[in-house]
Amino acid sequence: MLTELYEQIYEKIKQSNPIIIHRHVRPDPDALGSQRGLAAIIRQQFPEKNVYTVGEEVASLSYMGTMDNVPTDLYEEALVIVVDTANRPRIDDKRYSKGSYLIKIDHHPNDDQYGDISLVNDQASSCSEIVSDLSFYLKDRFSMNDEAARLLYAGIVGDTGRFLYPATSAHTMRTAAQLMEYDFSASEIGQLMNTHSKKVAHLSGFVLQNVEINDLGVAHVILTQEVLEQFDAEDDDTAQVVPLPGTIEGVICWGVFVQQTHGGYRCRLRSKGPVINEVAKRHGGGGHPLASGANAKDMDEIKEIIKEFDEAIMEWNDA
Amino acid sequence: MLTELYEQIYEKIKQSNPIIIHRHVRPDPDALGSQRGLAAIIRQQFPEKNVYTVGEEVASLSYMGTMDNVPTDLYEEALVIVVDTANRPRIDDKRYSKGSYLIKIDHHPNDDQYGDISLVNDQASSCSEIVSDLSFYLKDRFSMNDEAARLLYAGIVGDTGRFLYPATSAHTMRTAAQLMEYDFSASEIGQLMNTHSKKVAHLSGFVLQNVEINDLGVAHVILTQEVLEQFDAEDDDTAQVVPLPGTIEGVICWGVFVQQTHGGYRCRLRSKGPVINEVAKRHGGGGHPLASGANAKDMDEIKEIIKEFDEAIMEWNDA
Repeated sequence: MLTELYEQIYEKIKQSNPIIIHRHVRPDPDALGSQRGLAAIIRQQFPEKNVYTVGEEVASLSYMGTMDNVPTDLYEEALVIVVDTANRPRIDDKRYSKGSYLIKIDHHPNDDQYGDISLVNDQASSCSEIVSDLSFYLKDRFSMNDEAARLLYAGIVGDTGRFLYPATSAHTMRTAAQLMEYDFSASEIGQLMNTHSKKVAHLSGFVLQNVEINDLGVAHVILTQEVLEQFDAEDDDTAQVVPLPGTIEGVICWGVFVQQTHGGYRCRLRSKGPVINEVAKRHGGGGHPLASGANAKDMDEIKEIIKEFDEAIMEWNDA
Repeated sequence: MLTELYEQIYEKIKQSNPIIIHRHVRPDPDALGSQRGLAAIIRQQFPEKNVYTVGEEVASLSYMGTMDNVPTDLYEEALVIVVDTANRPRIDDKRYSKGSYLIKIDHHPNDDQYGDISLVNDQASSCSEIVSDLSFYLKDRFSMNDEAARLLYAGIVGDTGRFLYPATSAHTMRTAAQLMEYDFSASEIGQLMNTHSKKVAHLSGFVLQNVEINDLGVAHVILTQEVLEQFDAEDDDTAQVVPLPGTIEGVICWGVFVQQTHGGYRCRLRSKGPVINEVAKRHGGGGHPLASGANAKDMDEIKEIIKEFDEAIMEWNDA
């Protein structure tokens, strides 16, 4: 039962000091929201504890706060909590394994069941929703506060595409409503997350003008190093253009293929229905059923992926 | 009190037959959602009643259902309900005045207080939220159903920019959550409302690549007849690209200037803060403080409008 896990996690947090919270590499708003939202709750509830959040900084998400520098010897006594990270290799800062106790909190399919306690709820829209559940279930023992509510709301908005993707449940909406009772502007967070830099706007324009769509509903766009240079964009900037092909009538599955400096392509794969993580797995990747990542060594492999998308759509149409 | 009005409206509906529901001209998803959502609730609750929805059809919103043809003599005995329409001149189908009793249900500021009963809640995000409130308050006497929930959810999504604009409250989110308990796919509705035709996608790409932004935060883009022809787009298609400049970092006020076949430019003007309807009024237009329309006879007048936007931003910065 989830509620038993909530109690176990609460007891462990209560007993522990210091507490170091990790999340996945290349963090998105849900990774940072659940990481720093959880930290904000613990800090207010247990002001005597030392709570740290670690990992690489992301300039474009600076509104979600900054990370802490943690000397390695602190890990010896530490409770380490890893949020939003399905697999150990994706944990940012490998020192997570040096702690005295490890808790996993996540919403991805539980492929790698690590941690002394593992709270995995793959029905949740986001890890921020799970951290909110934890606080709202424990109530006064683990109270929500304004700062945590803002961060967790941003996390939910990030992972649901602002309440768009199918994982957005009635419970997700109620959780967002509960968070909105705290003192922050949900609308400002929403606007901020709906705003892009000029270069991403220009790159978005390129994607919308150059995306190719086949008759089955597979869309793809190739972002070569030349294109990225033209827009002064980096691999990380491309994350923001990934949803765009899905906003075009008739598109069912799509891929944004980003050429890497060291050769090959990073493949960002999405679907509105057909399951595509099996396709991703066949090409050195994986992920959610409708949102995966993979790698292609050349254009031939990209064509293979598109062909496998065609097949996935045909199977889905038949089903 | 709103709840007293809910009871009065319920009693009037219970007593009346036929019932004809109107909304504003050029309907958006909230107008249609509140109109047809209300009809769906009445039809299920009172299967013996004749319930009609009237007004012009909108092909692009056909997923919200079609309108009914109502012979004028039916109005004599009819209860007429007008939803989502602040002012009588904006009511679609002027026969609304021929009914035996008139109810106004709206969320805009109550500038024109018409109707024998007038339920105006300008704290609501949308008229669909008010119709939902009515049903959820009256419970078994006026039950929500799957079809109504789908329509009302679409209406809320439409008027809130999918839970983005400041009028989105915690209550709005809870109402959406309650609607999502019914049997329809909120995600499908969201995706549908977030989808554009290929030509609008291409035009969006053009706007994002060609928008010019000055140091004060004024953005503008000119859509000449040549550009519209290039994308096989018409003046109406340009409505969908108007929000785009506002998604770019640093943009405060913006205009999308659409060259007309008869010469001159239709000016679609937007702002994130400075009041711009005064600018619009000086150029043959008007509208809301942050969303207006105007007309420019040539490029010189467009430059004037941009200069007036500069001034509006400077005043706003000083305030």
